[in-house]
Amino acid sequence: MSDQPFETLHLALDEDGILTVTLNRPDALNAFDLTMAAELETLFVAVRGDDDVRAVVVTGAGRAFCAGMDLSAEGNVFGLDESLEPTPADLRDHLTDEPFDSGVRDTGGRVTLAIRACRKPVIAAINGAAVGIGATMTLAMDVRLASESARIGFVFGRLGIVPEATSSFYLPRIVGLPTALEWVYSSRILTAEEALAGRLVRSVHPGEELLPAAYALAREFTRDRSPVAVAMARELLYAGAGDTDPLETHRRDSLAMWHASVGDGKEGVAAFLEKRPPRFTGRASRTPDLD
Amino acid sequence: MSDQPFETLHLALDEDGILTVTLNRPDALNAFDLTMAAELETLFVAVRGDDDVRAVVVTGAGRAFCAGMDLSAEGNVFGLDESLEPTPADLRDHLTDEPFDSGVRDTGGRVTLAIRACRKPVIAAINGAAVGIGATMTLAMDVRLASESARIGFVFGRLGIVPEATSSFYLPRIVGLPTALEWVYSSRILTAEEALAGRLVRSVHPGEELLPAAYALAREFTRDRSPVAVAMARELLYAGAGDTDPLETHRRDSLAMWHASVGDGKEGVAAFLEKRPPRFTGRASRTPDLD
Amino acid sequence: MSDQPFETLHLALDEDGILTVTLNRPDALNAFDLTMAAELETLFVAVRGDDDVRAVVVTGAGRAFCAGMDLSAEGNVFGLDESLEPTPADLRDHLTDEPFDSGVRDTGGRVTLAIRACRKPVIAAINGAAVGIGATMTLAMDVRLASESARIGFVFGRLGIVPEATSSFYLPRIVGLPTALEWVYSSRILTAEEALAGRLVRSVHPGEELLPAAYALAREFTRDRSPVAVAMARELLYAGAGDTDPLETHRRDSLAMWHASVGDGKEGVAAFLEKRPPRFTGRASRTPDLD
Repeated sequence: MSDQPFETLHLALDEDGILTVTLNRPDALNAFDLTMAAELETLFVAVRGDDDVRAVVVTGAGRAFCAGMDLSAEGNVFGLDESLEPTPADLRDHLTDEPFDSGVRDTGGRVTLAIRACRKPVIAAINGAAVGIGATMTLAMDVRLASESARIGFVFGRLGIVPEATSSFYLPRIVGLPTALEWVYSSRILTAEEALAGRLVRSVHPGEELLPAAYALAREFTRDRSPVAVAMARELLYAGAGDTDPLETHRRDSLAMWHASVGDGKEGVAAFLEKRPPRFTGRASRTPDLD
Repeated sequence: MSDQPFETLHLALDEDGILTVTLNRPDALNAFDLTMAAELETLFVAVRGDDDVRAVVVTGAGRAFCAGMDLSAEGNVFGLDESLEPTPADLRDHLTDEPFDSGVRDTGGRVTLAIRACRKPVIAAINGAAVGIGATMTLAMDVRLASESARIGFVFGRLGIVPEATSSFYLPRIVGLPTALEWVYSSRILTAEEALAGRLVRSVHPGEELLPAAYALAREFTRDRSPVAVAMARELLYAGAGDTDPLETHRRDSLAMWHASVGDGKEGVAAFLEKRPPRFTGRASRTPDLD
Repeated sequence: MSDQPFETLHLALDEDGILTVTLNRPDALNAFDLTMAAELETLFVAVRGDDDVRAVVVTGAGRAFCAGMDLSAEGNVFGLDESLEPTPADLRDHLTDEPFDSGVRDTGGRVTLAIRACRKPVIAAINGAAVGIGATMTLAMDVRLASESARIGFVFGRLGIVPEATSSFYLPRIVGLPTALEWVYSSRILTAEEALAGRLVRSVHPGEELLPAAYALAREFTRDRSPVAVAMARELLYAGAGDTDPLETHRRDSLAMWHASVGDGKEGVAAFLEKRPPRFTGRASRTPDLD
């Protein structure tokens, strides 16, 4: 992860396994273009399988986090094939088939589905403007911190388009359904304080304290933790938030607890009883399937 | 919408397409009877198909919003056929078939399902007492504003009945599950301030400022907006709030973004780049099916 | 319920039908062992069928509520059979079959599924430390009150295990998804005030006022209430919180309203019109099936 394979992202992995992903088109306020979309998807798919990465912090280079889709891009800004006329059945039946894969799927959603599946805590450090896809991509991250200068807006309505990137799964579960509706209908630009009052962000920091706060949280989430137990807990909480009945949750819990009990749970209990730090050996890349 | 076709509702449509629906039985504190139920259902079905209506504000005539079901009505106050003995399978198989349609379906739910499907932002301006169905009908509206004199109560328990009108879908997603349970179990009458603290209402206003605040919000939700994009955003958020997995959300997002990208999204992006107001031509009545 | 059939639980039923369940291993800080798991499951199954019990208050003997799983227990602390290698399909197909029933199902989840099904309001009076299963078991209770000395922690991560007891269904619906993720990832021990700020508990009380506050709430939830209407309202709210679409809610509402309208609803409306207290005769044990 340190050879900078990407054009629009800068990566840095520290000794604690915390990967900083910096959206890195500062001259364009880190606007999201099709290259960035593909690179973010590729990155989070790689994070899923890379046991060296224990947590991810996402931030922006320069004064913005991400100013939204790059509308000044030449050609097809949305990356969608206008010659297709997709139906609901097309999407259900052929989600990953060509030509629907390339021409119909929302690019922001490809990124957020990769984040959903990445098995590591993901922290958004919103250092400035985060609008449109710049706002919705953070909803699929686990927690959001903002600098005092952050401005967040679900501004799709102003453009005649709709909130995407699976944001309608997350936003009501983060801020409640009425606030989600109001923020999307209004296209309002929220200050950091407004985002905090609505529980969209967990905390607001002076600019220079934003990344240190994000790293402190990332360390709290990973130090002396079993990576496979973290990955299973993450899966349980997102899946449970969508369950229709706790019986489904119970099935998943039971599998996760069984795997933990024959794995890192043994070491965890032993370390607890011996009053010493645990030495976990489980790997996130070997997380069992719970569904 | 201006020829006053209804007995229990007063309608007024302004030049911005904002329809004010006034529950209009002030001598009965706007109590909900079978006529009002049928009229509200008919109204919101009509709103769905009427492109002249851009947003709806619902309020009450006189000092109450809606004092609940009219228990003084002669005959069958609940509008249910006691000779039937419906089973879960009956409801699943024959939801819209006679005789179950007329004799078993909760009348409040017929209204709130019509609100759910109406494609326009709906704002409750709660000007006074809103109890029973007077409270639950507002849960299916997108946002709730209250006057200082509003009193809101989920008082079903006092009558030996249950919260209805699909309120158990909405209330936990608005105020959280524990508050929903406590308010329903207790049948407590909430002040406007208590409703605000619990996030049931978004804001509290002096009586004379309630409707102006509702209208300001309605304008913010509709001015320079694409009606079809608003309708799709509304559908996405309600459907997403119920999704079990973001993959379902992604399918719907992808369809909505595709339709926006070949429709009003083109004009929205052009207007943004040309720094001028957009001239959207999409119509809410032509909203594509996303599921 | 008064002959103290249990080893780890103390029961007391008062004249109002409020059952106090005291986790009663004070020398072990009421740690949860396999005996307590089995007894809590048995108890809540019994509560479901016992019309003398109108509400349940759960608290702990001594200075703790429940210090989590008893890790000092001999043998298999998790109660899981390590010789099995369960798959997702096993859990789906054979949830209640042997050997999966005994050797794979999460014991905490067996308890919380019994609480989910018990038909009575359940109030957690958290009088001290509530960690691990001591915290998650309270999530399936309807509301949580805490004493000032309560400390609550989802500490699974420290042990290399995962949050269980169907907690991932409830926690996001109580505190929102981001707070749920942060508390689980961090394994942080929350003070009563932090739990209140996050809406995990509804109120915080000086130690000696905790149980009186819980009883006051239990009486508010049951006095002059129809037990069958309370049971149906409880079912509606939990099921509605998991529904994917309000149409499902409407089916359940319609059945519940029909049953109420031919049952205790008649007496409730009559008592209201006659301005007298109702005399309900419905029994929770006869609650109709709504799904």
